[in-house]
Amino acid sequence: MTEEGKKYENFSEWYNEVIEKADLTDKRYPVKGMNIWTPYGWKLMSLIDAETRRLIDENDHQEVKFPLLIPEDEFQKEADHIKGFGDEVYWVSHAGSTELDIPLLLRPTSETAMYPIFDLWVRSHADLPLKIYQMVNVFRYETKQTRAFMRMREIHFFEAHTCHATEEEAEKQIHDDLEIMDELAKKLCMPYLKLRRTEWDKFPGAHYTVGGDALLPTGRLLQIAGIHQYLNNFAEAYDITYEDIDGEHKYVHQTTYGMSERLIGAVVAIHGDDRGVVLPPALAPVQVRVIPILYGDDPALMEYCRSIVQRAKELGLRVDIDDRPDMRPGSKFFESEEKGVPIRVDVGSHELEDQEITLVRRDTGEKITVPLDELEEEITSLMDTMEREMYARAERSLEENIVDAEDISDITEEKVYRIGWCGTLRCGEGIEESTERNLLGTLYHGEEYSGKCIWCDEETDTAAYLCKTH
Amino acid sequence: MTEEGKKYENFSEWYNEVIEKADLTDKRYPVKGMNIWTPYGWKLMSLIDAETRRLIDENDHQEVKFPLLIPEDEFQKEADHIKGFGDEVYWVSHAGSTELDIPLLLRPTSETAMYPIFDLWVRSHADLPLKIYQMVNVFRYETKQTRAFMRMREIHFFEAHTCHATEEEAEKQIHDDLEIMDELAKKLCMPYLKLRRTEWDKFPGAHYTVGGDALLPTGRLLQIAGIHQYLNNFAEAYDITYEDIDGEHKYVHQTTYGMSERLIGAVVAIHGDDRGVVLPPALAPVQVRVIPILYGDDPALMEYCRSIVQRAKELGLRVDIDDRPDMRPGSKFFESEEKGVPIRVDVGSHELEDQEITLVRRDTGEKITVPLDELEEEITSLMDTMEREMYARAERSLEENIVDAEDISDITEEKVYRIGWCGTLRCGEGIEESTERNLLGTLYHGEEYSGKCIWCDEETDTAAYLCKTH
Repeated sequence: MTEEGKKYENFSEWYNEVIEKADLTDKRYPVKGMNIWTPYGWKLMSLIDAETRRLIDENDHQEVKFPLLIPEDEFQKEADHIKGFGDEVYWVSHAGSTELDIPLLLRPTSETAMYPIFDLWVRSHADLPLKIYQMVNVFRYETKQTRAFMRMREIHFFEAHTCHATEEEAEKQIHDDLEIMDELAKKLCMPYLKLRRTEWDKFPGAHYTVGGDALLPTGRLLQIAGIHQYLNNFAEAYDITYEDIDGEHKYVHQTTYGMSERLIGAVVAIHGDDRGVVLPPALAPVQVRVIPILYGDDPALMEYCRSIVQRAKELGLRVDIDDRPDMRPGSKFFESEEKGVPIRVDVGSHELEDQEITLVRRDTGEKITVPLDELEEEITSLMDTMEREMYARAERSLEENIVDAEDISDITEEKVYRIGWCGTLRCGEGIEESTERNLLGTLYHGEEYSGKCIWCDEETDTAAYLCKTH
Repeated sequence: MTEEGKKYENFSEWYNEVIEKADLTDKRYPVKGMNIWTPYGWKLMSLIDAETRRLIDENDHQEVKFPLLIPEDEFQKEADHIKGFGDEVYWVSHAGSTELDIPLLLRPTSETAMYPIFDLWVRSHADLPLKIYQMVNVFRYETKQTRAFMRMREIHFFEAHTCHATEEEAEKQIHDDLEIMDELAKKLCMPYLKLRRTEWDKFPGAHYTVGGDALLPTGRLLQIAGIHQYLNNFAEAYDITYEDIDGEHKYVHQTTYGMSERLIGAVVAIHGDDRGVVLPPALAPVQVRVIPILYGDDPALMEYCRSIVQRAKELGLRVDIDDRPDMRPGSKFFESEEKGVPIRVDVGSHELEDQEITLVRRDTGEKITVPLDELEEEITSLMDTMEREMYARAERSLEENIVDAEDISDITEEKVYRIGWCGTLRCGEGIEESTERNLLGTLYHGEEYSGKCIWCDEETDTAAYLCKTH
């Protein structure tokens, strides 16, 4: 990327600094890859979870909670799945001083915990579709370098699992999941690519995988969602069948949809600036912060501020007032910026006198002074504008950083390259190895393309996306 | 207890039956003591959690989330604590095929995860009080027989942890916690005893423990809450100090407050009847269920039912309609009773004609027919009445089952015995062993008493409570 600022020059250092200054996580827990959710970080995650819950409930899912520990024998039923996750599971073999009969593992994801039970829950076509989800901690023993919110060993995980009578219904679910993801991404001001992964990069056990990938300021992609079509793969391994109207026993068709705290990582990376994080207006723990600009006591000004807080609360917003007596307004502005509060309301004696308020946008720094009477409409419309513009800026950056390449030697920058690909594993491997990048797949919804495979020169109508990843 | 009905004759069988019929949990998960939260059960737990969150947030606590895994060396810093929990922790010693440098354990409770970090969070008196809580899964390798919601190996746990400058402030917190518990117990229609535990029965590492004990239909007590005064015990082990106004470094005073899914177990046991569970009006997943009594198509009646649903929704209630076409009204009544829906609204052609509704109370089975116009006030007042009366009935039962005993030989029934106790360990042990009951402590708020120790005959002004426990 070509933008300026510390986040483009030294992303890692900048990222660690802004999340620490915003107090979104505490990294001092004495186990690598396991951080502490601070009140502010957990509140943000809970608001994202609540929005996810609202969207997925509307899609007729029900929330459940399965146990964390999975018996070894259940875990081993789907061959690709254990191959994919076997190296990174944590094992429990003792309790107190007793050796367990069957070793238990900490779920890395819950297919193998749920599907033996789905076998009991699904008897006939009347039990379908089965659509459930849970929000739980999962564990993966990452060997790569860990990074807060992006690559953790204890992960805050959303996972939806569905069973359907037919492949068409399962396909429809994947379509719905992508619409849910779009809605959520709008609230997060976070455009993303929907890429159908290559065969060798799909979820272990899946028929195909759609990755949701967000572009970070490093010019690399971060996967923020995974939506998977399993067809009958797991149903056969776990014998999940239903009796159809015609009395025949058939395997169910399954899908899953997963997301994690990476949503926070991506939001921070995409929207933050050198002053701190910038949180999306709809999901920020504090949406509006009122800051009285006073020197000494001023009961009339404080009263005015409290009435502003009250009116913003009545709009249903999360609003607070920074009325700490021993702190200068400048320091309060600074902290509000570090924490990414979307709208600051500065209230000084001028505002009180003229019955006005000054609204300061966190994303652009722009200030507007408006009559107090218009508080409700001004704040509401400013939040809408900010959401739209933050999304649009990120979208423009994503578009600008996707470039076509027709020759391997052109692939040198930290960009997303669109290339021709014949679709074979052999060429895919050649491309990945020679460019030291990942072939992240093809657009899920397809696109018109006509060119040559960048590796074997064969004519192709398939464009694939090549990029480094986080 | 002397009441009649299956729940008094064979509690275990009855309990297992009603939770299964209500579909509150699925016990078929292949690891002992770890059940699946079904949608209905999880919804009930989430509503209890939301009410807990509301109350504890009002008390200026903040929600956090600490990692599940605790390093062995941190766990071992407080001697009594490891003695109390050491035998029942699950150990993780491997990840993939790698042996971990330091074995990790699954939290049985989070003191030893949090307190090394509290040491970093608390620097000066300005950081106090520190009041946080989390709602997480904890693990205890129970050797006693497990029972759904009552004795599990994976437990859904609420734990609040506070640090204060002085013992007085810590005492005030315990007082606040008991008020929060009272509020919650009112919503759960569940009276309980607040007993200051004996020295040998307090939480491992605590200075003292207040147990909240509910009386089940077996005549035995179930601990549903634990509130603990730690004084400096953990602060010394984890070196949690603050710099006071006078520049002196002092240890903080700590308290904790814990609850779990036992709240559900107690509610089911106390209020259920031979037809199923009876859920408290304020916290039931479905508070009002409308059942159209129709045979064949009846668009006018269905329209009438939907308008009732709409009006109840506008009251902010969780309401649904059982409009399954191929099911008789009788079966729908039956299912509504099994699931413990507080208020059923039966709507037949008479009701439509007379513009009335018939409300049926789950707890007493009482029916009242009221004008449609009065829907809002009738439902609201009926919910209040039910909450009050369910609480009062349970309170009466608790009071009736507390009996005074002056001689060990009188202690033969499944009751709560109030006895004189001199306060010594020697007599306590004698009483517990000879009666095969637990000495659960003395009323936290104290009471007037004058009698003799039931074991050594010495004069005492202390009354203790003796009972079998679940």
